[in-house]
Amino acid sequence: MVDQTENRATALAPGDAAVSVPALRWEEPPEGPVVVLLDQTRLPVEEVELVCTDVPALVEAIRSLAVRGAPLLGLAGAYGVALAAARGYDVTEAAEHLRHARPTAVNLEYGVRRAERAYRSAVEGGADEEQAVAAALAEARALHREDAEASERMAEHGLALLGELLTGGGYRILTHCNTGALVSGGGGTAFGVVRAAHRAGELRRLWVDETRPLLQGARLTAYEAAREGMAYTLLTDNAAGSLFAAGEVDAVLIGADRIAADGSVANKVGSYPLAVLARYHHVPFVVVAPVTTVDLGTPDGASIEVEQRPGHEITEFAAPSAPGAGTEAGSGIPVAPLGAQAYNPAFDVTPAELITAIVTERGVVSPVTGDALAELCSRSPSPTEKSRSGNGMMGA
Amino acid sequence: MVDQTENRATALAPGDAAVSVPALRWEEPPEGPVVVLLDQTRLPVEEVELVCTDVPALVEAIRSLAVRGAPLLGLAGAYGVALAAARGYDVTEAAEHLRHARPTAVNLEYGVRRAERAYRSAVEGGADEEQAVAAALAEARALHREDAEASERMAEHGLALLGELLTGGGYRILTHCNTGALVSGGGGTAFGVVRAAHRAGELRRLWVDETRPLLQGARLTAYEAAREGMAYTLLTDNAAGSLFAAGEVDAVLIGADRIAADGSVANKVGSYPLAVLARYHHVPFVVVAPVTTVDLGTPDGASIEVEQRPGHEITEFAAPSAPGAGTEAGSGIPVAPLGAQAYNPAFDVTPAELITAIVTERGVVSPVTGDALAELCSRSPSPTEKSRSGNGMMGA
Repeated sequence: MVDQTENRATALAPGDAAVSVPALRWEEPPEGPVVVLLDQTRLPVEEVELVCTDVPALVEAIRSLAVRGAPLLGLAGAYGVALAAARGYDVTEAAEHLRHARPTAVNLEYGVRRAERAYRSAVEGGADEEQAVAAALAEARALHREDAEASERMAEHGLALLGELLTGGGYRILTHCNTGALVSGGGGTAFGVVRAAHRAGELRRLWVDETRPLLQGARLTAYEAAREGMAYTLLTDNAAGSLFAAGEVDAVLIGADRIAADGSVANKVGSYPLAVLARYHHVPFVVVAPVTTVDLGTPDGASIEVEQRPGHEITEFAAPSAPGAGTEAGSGIPVAPLGAQAYNPAFDVTPAELITAIVTERGVVSPVTGDALAELCSRSPSPTEKSRSGNGMMGA
Repeated sequence: MVDQTENRATALAPGDAAVSVPALRWEEPPEGPVVVLLDQTRLPVEEVELVCTDVPALVEAIRSLAVRGAPLLGLAGAYGVALAAARGYDVTEAAEHLRHARPTAVNLEYGVRRAERAYRSAVEGGADEEQAVAAALAEARALHREDAEASERMAEHGLALLGELLTGGGYRILTHCNTGALVSGGGGTAFGVVRAAHRAGELRRLWVDETRPLLQGARLTAYEAAREGMAYTLLTDNAAGSLFAAGEVDAVLIGADRIAADGSVANKVGSYPLAVLARYHHVPFVVVAPVTTVDLGTPDGASIEVEQRPGHEITEFAAPSAPGAGTEAGSGIPVAPLGAQAYNPAFDVTPAELITAIVTERGVVSPVTGDALAELCSRSPSPTEKSRSGNGMMGA
């Protein structure tokens, strides 16, 4: 794929923007349209952009986690379909490749489907190729806008929920993985709520799980928190228990890669142990995700396919500054005996009964039940809607 | 300290021994006595020995974790006192330096005290310097032998306990950190029980937590498991939750750095979250430690001093093969933004109510109560003793 991508390195400079380079954007240089990605495997050491001129390059970027995070994967999928169309490739084939690049985040499939349908409808409606390309791109851009709007609504709903759940302000929030501007067309999911709390002067401390094996917390969330000027502290995932025991965590906020119809949440591995710890210590455990992450076609947690990633992500250390490090076995620094076998699920599944609330752009589900979730999904999207679904109204 | 240590590198070769190089030994070359340590920060990449000719070098080796693990720290403390005496240094001063090298493992203080007392008693009894040195060394050697014997007894008691707790054999055991021949004058604590199960044909799978931030599981336990020919699988600490949820863990076995009078156990950070997960999933959580790890002078878990280690252990990655890597901030590969603050407790504390049993060389305490622990500690040491203490007899 090397000839389909081009690196543009930018020196890291301090700034007040959450991320100085957008995580994903569409560009139309004279050589033809491209999808430009911020290579998240190189953060926080350097900001390097990957310029994808075709779908195989984009699929490789998705697999290697250069682009990642459920909402952003949806955008990558939609823009990928538009890219294939604009470059004259087979759209059906491109869509197939894209939707199977990673199995767990439902948003990827959703974004692909929307752009593909828009393209297909245009073609079936008698549009010429250029118009069909424009339709696919317009759909990707619509998804992008919706995603940014959803981020804002989630931040509002989430901040209101924190105000109800926690009295006294000065929140100490624990988060896992990365859920900010790097995963979204907007400000993100769980991190968006944290940012809202910070901007409201209500964030006392953000506890950032480093998130092994790929250190999205240390590399990406810490990077976003630092740029926002938050009071944040990094920790190994297994030190979270000590914080709970010491009463230092007021709430856990995480994102989601897929939410099943029964309210089970697949998210970055390590989320489930946090949910168990939160329950044991009577600390609210809150999931923040757009409605597009809810997959009513997946009945329950057991039905969610959890991606198993290569063992070398654990048995070797890949330096973030080394281009291509970690993409293949043997490319990193060994930290385990040669031949060590590793268990490396990318996600785990937290059952609904351990989740205090699911915050979406359409409102908050609490307690989390399949019925409440279905009701929320059936609502028509309304940016100003702030009501809440569930068997009871929390804090009401 | 460079001039007080000497490196002896040995190429790693397969062998049937658990560890081909002893973790710690006393040598008396013509230039004078030395304590020789296997540098555990370099495993599993290479076996390098550190030759300590004085106590400051030994203290530095303890602080940098070149030598580590509660029982082995006791031996390092005792041999350190003997070394100071043999080299003509001030024994009181040396003992002070040694006992404060690390705060949490009570065995360090215990080993120092025993050798210092032996030396002091000899002097007070009219012995000349050479005899007093011999007394200190004899005490260190006695501790070494006792430790090896204790390992054997713990393995026996632990294996019997597993037989009572788990029916059907074919155990799938999860362990954290490193508790084998690298931490002991003998076969180790929790890993010693795992080894006994393996040799009895009863170990189906050893799940090895990598144990962030210093990867003692990936680097050391995997190394010992591989040399023993065990079926083992490495995982990130936060993936343990997925194994519990899938019913893939029959028991958790860990060591201890200090056991308070109420049965609270300080052990490597990440132990407490495992205890909470084990309780949530109704899986036995077993602590294996010699009686020397019990500190009846520490009344409860809250009184245990937990060592806070430098943040750069989390914000930077230190390659095991790089000599001196990780000992100072800035010497590793950055994995977090510059200036990131980190919370890095070396240990956490698990309360007695989450512990199914504590296995010692004198028997098993279950349920874990302060009274049962005190009763066990008051027993006279008896290598053949296999009885059990507690409010009830487990499995009886």
